[in-house]
Amino acid sequence: MALKSFEARVENYRKIINDRLNHAVTKDAPISFYEPVKYVLSSGGKRIRPVLVIFACKAVGGKEDACFDAAAAIEILHNFTLVHDDIMDKDELRRNRKTVHTKWDDAVAILTGDGLVALAYRYLLKTNTKAIKEIVDIFTEGIIDVCEGQALDKEFEERFDIDFDQYMVMIEKKTARLLMISSEIGAILGGGNQQQRGILKEYARLLGNAFQIQDDVLDMEMTSGKTFGSDIKQKKRTILFVHALNCADQDIKNKLWNFIHRPVIADEDIFKIRDLFEASGTLDFARQQVNSLIEQAHQIINQLAPSESRDDLNQLLQSVLERKS
Amino acid sequence: MALKSFEARVENYRKIINDRLNHAVTKDAPISFYEPVKYVLSSGGKRIRPVLVIFACKAVGGKEDACFDAAAAIEILHNFTLVHDDIMDKDELRRNRKTVHTKWDDAVAILTGDGLVALAYRYLLKTNTKAIKEIVDIFTEGIIDVCEGQALDKEFEERFDIDFDQYMVMIEKKTARLLMISSEIGAILGGGNQQQRGILKEYARLLGNAFQIQDDVLDMEMTSGKTFGSDIKQKKRTILFVHALNCADQDIKNKLWNFIHRPVIADEDIFKIRDLFEASGTLDFARQQVNSLIEQAHQIINQLAPSESRDDLNQLLQSVLERKS
Repeated sequence: MALKSFEARVENYRKIINDRLNHAVTKDAPISFYEPVKYVLSSGGKRIRPVLVIFACKAVGGKEDACFDAAAAIEILHNFTLVHDDIMDKDELRRNRKTVHTKWDDAVAILTGDGLVALAYRYLLKTNTKAIKEIVDIFTEGIIDVCEGQALDKEFEERFDIDFDQYMVMIEKKTARLLMISSEIGAILGGGNQQQRGILKEYARLLGNAFQIQDDVLDMEMTSGKTFGSDIKQKKRTILFVHALNCADQDIKNKLWNFIHRPVIADEDIFKIRDLFEASGTLDFARQQVNSLIEQAHQIINQLAPSESRDDLNQLLQSVLERKS
Repeated sequence: MALKSFEARVENYRKIINDRLNHAVTKDAPISFYEPVKYVLSSGGKRIRPVLVIFACKAVGGKEDACFDAAAAIEILHNFTLVHDDIMDKDELRRNRKTVHTKWDDAVAILTGDGLVALAYRYLLKTNTKAIKEIVDIFTEGIIDVCEGQALDKEFEERFDIDFDQYMVMIEKKTARLLMISSEIGAILGGGNQQQRGILKEYARLLGNAFQIQDDVLDMEMTSGKTFGSDIKQKKRTILFVHALNCADQDIKNKLWNFIHRPVIADEDIFKIRDLFEASGTLDFARQQVNSLIEQAHQIINQLAPSESRDDLNQLLQSVLERKS
């Protein structure tokens, strides 16, 4: 039975992936390992990456069930990055639940993340394809790039000279890279040719960069599902900080520097910083960047032959624009 | 040119592996990622696992250069486990150098370990073999078992009811497993048949268990390269604790319980605890276990056809018996 709407198809795939993740682990012991692993895998989430794997596979004419294991693998890998990033960033909540290192401790969270990496490979290796070596290669290089991106993100917290280009390199590795391996692996498993693979990879790069910039903007919107100003408090080099410190009037720059050099940024300061971002046109700049990246992604993806999945990939872009969390 | 002695061959392979590890990473940036990665890969070590890969490969008639990349991969993987275990165990020194989380911080060490896993897969995937899927499967299942072993090790620190069988399950996963994947992957890359692979895997299981029990014993010997009593201070369930708490006289058990329940075990207590282990025959028991495992391993490995590499695998067992660090 064909599902009529984009939303219904996404929801259907989300259920398929959640089902796989809920059954990814059948063992109970050692409990200090498998309990947190199951906790993470059952914690929900948008499941954008596996959905992208499936849409990419179908958009090049492949059958969806050829890529379910790989889709689950990439979602497990994504969850590994969240568990370890949460330790590094000392985040206490994730998807409205305690993070692993908060509910248990750092040692448990380190081991949980390590186990998730291996479970991700285990799932990927279930994929029945002649291209197994190629997809494991892509998966592996993706992890290395994500590590590089996370390292840059942490390095930038201590630096005050980050320009827009450096910011883009960082988010492309940290955020876009997993989306790129999602669409590339989906395209390979769908039997896509080199041109189709290139289109889908570039689409995912643009989508991922737009997604991260939107994430930076949402940090400054109280109506979003994110904790208001959490990036600012952690002194993350979001696009807003990077743009304002490079492009705002000297007066606004001075005020921002003043906040940045404080040991702790207080709740009431977040509002003042947001006002500075508004006044300097920085929030507008970021929103324009999102729009521009999404527009480019539409153009790229429409180079594929028309199909329901191509429409879905276009809709996926709109959902990034409209998301509130 | 054939090298004449076991020691010369080990040293030769150690150099080949060190050379590969020193060139495993060519990038410098992000510096907070690649600097600690290079620090770890250049930190030396006995390189027992890669040497085992090579001996296993040759013992079934394979050519050594068929397995150098896989051998390097397993050594990189081993180093990943050390970096993350050192954070969990709060160890400050490793191979006479500061551990990564001590020289940098926990966040850097977590990311370094994560990167090493991916670099290990990258190296493994360089291997030119039709059996690539099989060796990546074995590698992946090995990581999951090592995680389980590390979880058990941490769980046991809080428990007082561990028996000898539970201890053996833990050390087999934590320590023997990586040696087992070393010999199995070596045998596969050498073209070994199922029987040869089984022999080499069982040999490595016995070797690994003997190695860990010897490690537990060395913790109680001031002449060893290990920090005297560090396992005891961390309340690790070594074979000595496990055996004594299960098998010693009630008087000795009571005295040991008394030490275990202290918040901190002092330096002078280590000597008293060692005396209790001596008096209860626990140290003798552990040494007998090592001898017995090594003897079984000799018997197993001698089921292979005679070869220089079979001799080397026999010698490798002796080096465990004689090691001081």
